[in-house]
Amino acid sequence: MPSNGLATIGLLAMILNTAPAATTAQRLLLSSTVIAVSAAMIAMLAFHLWTVPGWRKRARYVASAEGMIDLASACALPFGWLIVPDPQDAQLFALVWALRYIRHASGLALFWRVMHRSRTALLSILSLFIAIFFVASSLAYIFERHAQPDAFGSIPRAMWWAIVTMTTTGYGDMLPVTIWGRLLAGWVMVGGVVMFALQAGIIATAFAAELQRRHFLHIWDLVTRVPLFQKLGAATIADIVRRLEMRDVGKGAIIVRKGEPGDTMYFVVSGEAAVQLDPAPIVLNPGSFFGEMALLFGAPRSATVVATKPSVLLVLDVADLRELAARRPELVDLIEAEARRRRDANAASQPPSTPSERTLRALAAAQVPD
Amino acid sequence: MPSNGLATIGLLAMILNTAPAATTAQRLLLSSTVIAVSAAMIAMLAFHLWTVPGWRKRARYVASAEGMIDLASACALPFGWLIVPDPQDAQLFALVWALRYIRHASGLALFWRVMHRSRTALLSILSLFIAIFFVASSLAYIFERHAQPDAFGSIPRAMWWAIVTMTTTGYGDMLPVTIWGRLLAGWVMVGGVVMFALQAGIIATAFAAELQRRHFLHIWDLVTRVPLFQKLGAATIADIVRRLEMRDVGKGAIIVRKGEPGDTMYFVVSGEAAVQLDPAPIVLNPGSFFGEMALLFGAPRSATVVATKPSVLLVLDVADLRELAARRPELVDLIEAEARRRRDANAASQPPSTPSERTLRALAAAQVPD
Amino acid sequence: MPSNGLATIGLLAMILNTAPAATTAQRLLLSSTVIAVSAAMIAMLAFHLWTVPGWRKRARYVASAEGMIDLASACALPFGWLIVPDPQDAQLFALVWALRYIRHASGLALFWRVMHRSRTALLSILSLFIAIFFVASSLAYIFERHAQPDAFGSIPRAMWWAIVTMTTTGYGDMLPVTIWGRLLAGWVMVGGVVMFALQAGIIATAFAAELQRRHFLHIWDLVTRVPLFQKLGAATIADIVRRLEMRDVGKGAIIVRKGEPGDTMYFVVSGEAAVQLDPAPIVLNPGSFFGEMALLFGAPRSATVVATKPSVLLVLDVADLRELAARRPELVDLIEAEARRRRDANAASQPPSTPSERTLRALAAAQVPD
Amino acid sequence: MPSNGLATIGLLAMILNTAPAATTAQRLLLSSTVIAVSAAMIAMLAFHLWTVPGWRKRARYVASAEGMIDLASACALPFGWLIVPDPQDAQLFALVWALRYIRHASGLALFWRVMHRSRTALLSILSLFIAIFFVASSLAYIFERHAQPDAFGSIPRAMWWAIVTMTTTGYGDMLPVTIWGRLLAGWVMVGGVVMFALQAGIIATAFAAELQRRHFLHIWDLVTRVPLFQKLGAATIADIVRRLEMRDVGKGAIIVRKGEPGDTMYFVVSGEAAVQLDPAPIVLNPGSFFGEMALLFGAPRSATVVATKPSVLLVLDVADLRELAARRPELVDLIEAEARRRRDANAASQPPSTPSERTLRALAAAQVPD
Repeated sequence: MPSNGLATIGLLAMILNTAPAATTAQRLLLSSTVIAVSAAMIAMLAFHLWTVPGWRKRARYVASAEGMIDLASACALPFGWLIVPDPQDAQLFALVWALRYIRHASGLALFWRVMHRSRTALLSILSLFIAIFFVASSLAYIFERHAQPDAFGSIPRAMWWAIVTMTTTGYGDMLPVTIWGRLLAGWVMVGGVVMFALQAGIIATAFAAELQRRHFLHIWDLVTRVPLFQKLGAATIADIVRRLEMRDVGKGAIIVRKGEPGDTMYFVVSGEAAVQLDPAPIVLNPGSFFGEMALLFGAPRSATVVATKPSVLLVLDVADLRELAARRPELVDLIEAEARRRRDANAASQPPSTPSERTLRALAAAQVPD
Repeated sequence: MPSNGLATIGLLAMILNTAPAATTAQRLLLSSTVIAVSAAMIAMLAFHLWTVPGWRKRARYVASAEGMIDLASACALPFGWLIVPDPQDAQLFALVWALRYIRHASGLALFWRVMHRSRTALLSILSLFIAIFFVASSLAYIFERHAQPDAFGSIPRAMWWAIVTMTTTGYGDMLPVTIWGRLLAGWVMVGGVVMFALQAGIIATAFAAELQRRHFLHIWDLVTRVPLFQKLGAATIADIVRRLEMRDVGKGAIIVRKGEPGDTMYFVVSGEAAVQLDPAPIVLNPGSFFGEMALLFGAPRSATVVATKPSVLLVLDVADLRELAARRPELVDLIEAEARRRRDANAASQPPSTPSERTLRALAAAQVPD
Repeated sequence: MPSNGLATIGLLAMILNTAPAATTAQRLLLSSTVIAVSAAMIAMLAFHLWTVPGWRKRARYVASAEGMIDLASACALPFGWLIVPDPQDAQLFALVWALRYIRHASGLALFWRVMHRSRTALLSILSLFIAIFFVASSLAYIFERHAQPDAFGSIPRAMWWAIVTMTTTGYGDMLPVTIWGRLLAGWVMVGGVVMFALQAGIIATAFAAELQRRHFLHIWDLVTRVPLFQKLGAATIADIVRRLEMRDVGKGAIIVRKGEPGDTMYFVVSGEAAVQLDPAPIVLNPGSFFGEMALLFGAPRSATVVATKPSVLLVLDVADLRELAARRPELVDLIEAEARRRRDANAASQPPSTPSERTLRALAAAQVPD
Repeated sequence: MPSNGLATIGLLAMILNTAPAATTAQRLLLSSTVIAVSAAMIAMLAFHLWTVPGWRKRARYVASAEGMIDLASACALPFGWLIVPDPQDAQLFALVWALRYIRHASGLALFWRVMHRSRTALLSILSLFIAIFFVASSLAYIFERHAQPDAFGSIPRAMWWAIVTMTTTGYGDMLPVTIWGRLLAGWVMVGGVVMFALQAGIIATAFAAELQRRHFLHIWDLVTRVPLFQKLGAATIADIVRRLEMRDVGKGAIIVRKGEPGDTMYFVVSGEAAVQLDPAPIVLNPGSFFGEMALLFGAPRSATVVATKPSVLLVLDVADLRELAARRPELVDLIEAEARRRRDANAASQPPSTPSERTLRALAAAQVPD
């Protein structure tokens, strides 16, 4: 996200530029940075509008949320200079650039969706929170106004104390001193801390559910591209999907290193990997899998596997494989058949002493081979 | 909730009226608002009592929780004027109106139910909390009373420090200064923060369970009104219910927009929707569904769907449809049969190239059509 | 828990007695209360030892955790008077009575069991916490000692700042003022708040699991006493047990009130209840159930049910009944057969228009009766 | 973890040594301790390098994370003395020893793995957090700079206020005083507390999942060593594994005490235990189980069981046994067959009145024996 980094640089320069201790040279540098970033944003907007064909599409882009953020970012500083006489203060308009974080944070859309899903619970707690907030402020005013006419002289002032106390921030600038005020404060603190944690607990639960849903969709798309899995029934696939993780590897990355302990197996979704065996490496095309031997016998990895092209892999943990093998024996059959097929094809390059027949099934049956 | 908004306006006017900086004109306006709200509440109560037939029903209403809150709201200000000489202070009785939040917050009933369900856990933590509170206050008094006779001169004073510290509010008005006092304070902070978060964690878990239960009941009622689902077995329905969301749409609302990416399908529970196709729109009556094509092929929506009456829809997510299709193949059969029936009926208005036979089943079987 | 209440009274009197504002008369009353509670504890211990037969059993009681707390409670004040010259200070030994909370809190045993179960996770976070605590204190000392030689003059002093900051208590008595100190403080706050919430999250999860386990055992014992359920298979019972709640009612308590909306059904475990119908009430013995009609048709309760003896009931929610009915059709058969049997037996007292054949099964099948 | 304890001693001595109140004698003792610990670390490194055979292996060890921490620990103090003239200050380099906590905390690897797994969610919340942090600081500067030019005179200064407020630490050294500043502060507190709790909630959920995965693997390894379980199918084993807990007992430890209430049964994985019956104790070899009688009849333990060798046991809770028995009847068959076999073998030493035929199955069927 280049424009995100640009916004960060611009914002930091603007922020540091407000420091009174800065020297003239530093100020010059920082101001130039802010102006340069602003110029870059104007250029980016202009370039984007220029490349978009037709006026109708341009208008639609400007009317979209993304376009409006781009437009606001580009206009922020020029607009500031127009209406604010002090150029130093005009730079504060660069704060609009913080909107770009929202534009690019895909997680933010997720966040709002979660808020929307759990709105019933959140609203009912919010309503309780507001009721407590009103009552606590008013009672604090009633209890404390004679003892501290300055601090608690009106309910709006007491509201400042109430919010500082309910969130357990506790600045200490306003304090109840009467018995009743302190008893009230005790309840407000306890109530506030429970209510906020409750709110957060509800959001966190909903967040976890939404993330799991997204992960399911993402992995499902990858799994359907592996021919091996296409032979399985839908229920088995849904079960596998919930247990796989994705891993992106660059060209030349070492996926598995000979001699290391292994607790994961890999399926190649796209790209290509090579098992570095001695006469000649075995090439693993999309649909192949590897690393199942270390899982099976608890032995260290017998060979190094390197990605020969940028690849997408699916990773299966040993704990998950065991649970899967127990619940879905057809998966084991499939992997074993495939392993046998592959071994026959590469018979020469395979180490001869592999105990081939008692593989994953033995693992699934949880019997110590004797 | 009109009376809820009324209470908020009245409360805000009362709160602002305590601000010493208010001018005479502002005060007059605020006081009038408070009095007007009070008058409105008296009128509402009188109207309600007048419309209820018979003295027995009136008495029962006044004796109910709702009636008592209405009565208290109506009497608050007149009662205040009677017993408090200062009219400014008498307005503080308007605080009673905050009870109306409780009256209308359906979530509050939920909240108390949750508290009741997890009372065993909450009480045992509360008892531990009180024991720590007593011991911490007493020890703080013992450790600090000689060093700070003013601040920690008695255990009740030390209790103020203890509650401020256990809730991590930390006003800073009272501080241990001895070694032992500070060691104690460290433990009190850690213990307090863990205990409160634990309390909140328990409530949040119970809250989530209760919300899920309510959602199940609500959706179940809607599902049983869709004829399509009535052909399914009970176990399948229970499974579907857990995955559906409800959506209310007003007349004329665009539910699905042509060309947008789609990841949800819709079932019409009540009302009416229209698929805007070219010769004539297809009318979707209660029991119909739409949007399944975009789910199936990942293609954008092929037509816009508009609600022609205020409608209630059930929404199914693509992730949930896939899991359901895997576990409940009969649902897929049903949807496909219905889709075929609908297509035959509207054959003329249907785009001819629809790949009709490999629909949801292909999706469920997770095979790439070849 | 009488001795728990006694301890609370004694502790409160001791606490209030330290208030310097107390008059002589108040002091006399409070001191007498403390002494009386102490005398009562000595008497209780003596009585207990006197009623236990044989010296061996007495010795074993004194050696048990419970006996030691009783002994310590009884000896606290006399021991205090012996070794502390000031009688006012001697009363502080009454703090030992707070141990009685631990003795009676059954939830505390649960709490420790939970801590023990999740000790691996808790210890690893604790070790991380200690490492951060040491490093933060030392770095704060290094960064701040020249700027604030008084406040941050040694690492032990900086440790006080670190714990106050990590728990987000923030008294404000010690503050970093240098750039590096403030950057450090920012990280310490964020790290502290995440680590504590994490700790609490782990405990809360384990707590919820342990509570569910206890609930399962408790309800299982009740369910096996209901003959109706004994005809069901073990898997069905395990499923039911997870969904039932217990309710204790006293003699004469109204369990279900005619005309109220109903969303629960009840099974009588022990005691007796009566359905108040007009010619003669129907007596419900242990093993009977009631309230299923309101669940079925969403109609209000058709009759009032009163407990005629102190009774234990099992409560089943409508949401849970629906899920159970979907997964365990044999339960529905059983309830329907029983309902039919009961209706035949009480044919005279039954309202004639009950739609008897489409009962729970219709509900389970989710079909709108037509 | 001896080197972990050594690091703690060294760190504590270094920390206390910075206290200005220390006497010369104390300082000498503390300095000597620090030097001794440093010497021990050098010796340990030297010994380790000496025992490792070959220069290549030595180089690899020094290049590993573990070796680098060892090297840094050993060199910390000598390096400090070299570059810092004040020997007191040079001791601060001992802070490097805190790295040893990371080296030994196996939980830390777990922690990072959890962070990695939930990175998508954490990063999106972090990005939101940074956006709010920037905006809150800038707005606070804009609102407060005229009212408090010293405190809020630049945005970097306002950032200190923002982080102190968002974490709800609330030192109270900087406070908004304007209306707009206080409204902003209220939102910042609420937003901060929700965001941190959300972050923590996500980590806690992921942590719990990862711990469960580890527990599954660990218990699986133990279960496969018990011959009894090897006769079961893989699905049953996976189900059992999720419910067992491990317990290590030393030689001579009393596992079960006669007359105590019992709610767990035990399986011997390795080692040996003895049931202390009267003519001669029954020896329990690996693969045996005991304690099932107390579970079955709710009676107290009928005999004491002592570990005669250091043993590893698997513990099954009564609640878990009941759920297992309901779902996996083959487990009950197996345990009963084994119990019968064992009873026949030890017929002489068995109490004659054991109601042998209605054992676990009766429990599983939840019928009260009549």
